[in-house]
Amino acid sequence: MPANFTEQRIKKIFKIAESNVKEKIDLILLKNGTEPHLDLSFFYITGLEAGLFEGCALASYPDGETRVYTSKLEEQSALKGKDRFQVITFKDRDHLAKMLKKDLARSSNGFSIGINSNELTHKNFEDLKKLYPKAKFVDVSSAIVMARMVKDDQEIAAIKQAAQIASKAFPKLLDFLKDGITEYKVSAFLNATMQDLGAQGPSFDTIVAFGENSAEPHYSPRDVKLRKGYFALFDYGAKFRRYCSDITRTVVYGKASKQQREIYQIVREANQLGIDASRVGVKAGEIHQKVSRFIDTTKYKGRFIHSTGHTVGLAVHDGAVIHPAFKGTIEENMVFTIEPGIYIPGLGGVRIEDDIVIRKNKAEVLTTAPKELIEV
Amino acid sequence: MPANFTEQRIKKIFKIAESNVKEKIDLILLKNGTEPHLDLSFFYITGLEAGLFEGCALASYPDGETRVYTSKLEEQSALKGKDRFQVITFKDRDHLAKMLKKDLARSSNGFSIGINSNELTHKNFEDLKKLYPKAKFVDVSSAIVMARMVKDDQEIAAIKQAAQIASKAFPKLLDFLKDGITEYKVSAFLNATMQDLGAQGPSFDTIVAFGENSAEPHYSPRDVKLRKGYFALFDYGAKFRRYCSDITRTVVYGKASKQQREIYQIVREANQLGIDASRVGVKAGEIHQKVSRFIDTTKYKGRFIHSTGHTVGLAVHDGAVIHPAFKGTIEENMVFTIEPGIYIPGLGGVRIEDDIVIRKNKAEVLTTAPKELIEV
Repeated sequence: MPANFTEQRIKKIFKIAESNVKEKIDLILLKNGTEPHLDLSFFYITGLEAGLFEGCALASYPDGETRVYTSKLEEQSALKGKDRFQVITFKDRDHLAKMLKKDLARSSNGFSIGINSNELTHKNFEDLKKLYPKAKFVDVSSAIVMARMVKDDQEIAAIKQAAQIASKAFPKLLDFLKDGITEYKVSAFLNATMQDLGAQGPSFDTIVAFGENSAEPHYSPRDVKLRKGYFALFDYGAKFRRYCSDITRTVVYGKASKQQREIYQIVREANQLGIDASRVGVKAGEIHQKVSRFIDTTKYKGRFIHSTGHTVGLAVHDGAVIHPAFKGTIEENMVFTIEPGIYIPGLGGVRIEDDIVIRKNKAEVLTTAPKELIEV
Repeated sequence: MPANFTEQRIKKIFKIAESNVKEKIDLILLKNGTEPHLDLSFFYITGLEAGLFEGCALASYPDGETRVYTSKLEEQSALKGKDRFQVITFKDRDHLAKMLKKDLARSSNGFSIGINSNELTHKNFEDLKKLYPKAKFVDVSSAIVMARMVKDDQEIAAIKQAAQIASKAFPKLLDFLKDGITEYKVSAFLNATMQDLGAQGPSFDTIVAFGENSAEPHYSPRDVKLRKGYFALFDYGAKFRRYCSDITRTVVYGKASKQQREIYQIVREANQLGIDASRVGVKAGEIHQKVSRFIDTTKYKGRFIHSTGHTVGLAVHDGAVIHPAFKGTIEENMVFTIEPGIYIPGLGGVRIEDDIVIRKNKAEVLTTAPKELIEV
């Protein structure tokens, strides 16, 4: 990876944006709200690993130049990237506004500012409009999504490490399970184990769901105890250098019933189908259709109630879904999940989720935890 | 607390909004983006403890009625609030748009929709404008901030529990410290300990900073080892029922130098000054001025580089700062931090942070971990 990835990433965004919107964009301006309303593209462009940067701004130009506007509070954190971009420190909101107006208003007759509507709050947009009354605002969010969707080597290395951490936590998790342990305790154990293995933190609120709770895809762990015969579903991930992994494994605690085994094998097969279908040039919708149609040929028709997957990166849900709702085509170096599931309210559910990176000829699976049916 | 807090919270928002904007608002409409761009007010109004609700919407009416639009994926999670609001399930984005248009367009001659510009993405705003071309959009974000800033009993109970968890973790943390342990390991231990004590998770990325790193207020833990004579700064918090706590304690590992002791005592005194100044009826700016002026009377003038505090709630930074930038007056049942610090690049920093709730006659400190200088 060459030294200045900030410049490379900026040029990539401009290239896509200008081909999308068919007009000149003078600069791209990002502005963070307060946590959690931070623009993750701020971190994509800067590569800053530490710091929150609430209320901070970033301006990037077509030639790859970037200026980061930071408060005193994060100045030290920002300066870690000073070889890649200019760091400008503001005293307060008014000072920032004054500097943004002065530094960026290249022409009093108007200029065009690319904004990231997906991650810019409407309030911040209104403030920018007041600051630059003659500017034309152009939404470049789809260019940013597309740029971020195809990862560079440095990003893939971070996600790979995040996926390795999550995978290594899985056998430790199995050893930790015992009669009567709560979802709650297991979730705490998983998070601690991932941090011990080098994670910056969990990439989202860890899901541990026992028994019928496993039928609720976005369940939150509670005080529910593990009992023989339960499905136990674990959906979790690590953050490493701000990049996320996202894995799901489901096991049976005790001996699997015939039905549990049957559901598991169908989901297992669907997961493999999804991975095999993920190749350069196919449509995301085709992957989903292969997976969902397969499940619909079984007696569990209609029990797969979400997309087959989603891209992963700085955000766990990093811009696109593996579903016909996303019209795009799979490209080399995209990273996304394949996560079919079958959910039966009152009984439970099985989901098997992997993170894959698309290589020239096939998908490489980054989450290496075992996928055969495990009876703990 | 009466059963239907959703209705009470909605009525509170409408009351403030209508007195702020001096016009009739037909409904308030919230729309979530994808994680992390979720409107926390969605959770304030619904009180839903589980679920992500990406892309979901909520409509509330002046009479307290609320409709929650959820995808199939979160239907089970949403139904947990069915005694407080109506749950409407959509199949996909288009279906949601169709339903929103049909359910909410009360008059084809136009109506006024309150939006939360602080937490609504600009993209979602543009989509709403297309959906309701005749509607008038009114920003009610400041009313939402104000409503959320004064907590009800149920909210205070959750924050109190979150603060207790963080406080109880502190002595365990001290026992865990030893020569050569990394910031990284300590941060993992803190998170696990809080979860063991009942936290849903950390309320933000835990800061553990040794030695000179403690001079960087928003530092992220690294592979740095604890050595005798270092300041060790811990800034962390627990999430409990989605509500946050936020505490900072600084200790000296080994015997404190004269200068370390001096810095610590000034910050300790500043912390107490801030707490004592926090009373019903004072301006937030007055509290900050008392604290910062005190520090500026010492030889560490200019070394306190951030606000004295911020409100805490569903967000760690829940709307207002304890600083002249916030023009508001302190009211009963506000919850905020008091967190003075002194930072000396190259040497280190001290911060002492508490969460307090404003009662009729005084501030109640929720974070009960000890504050005298500890030499570990």
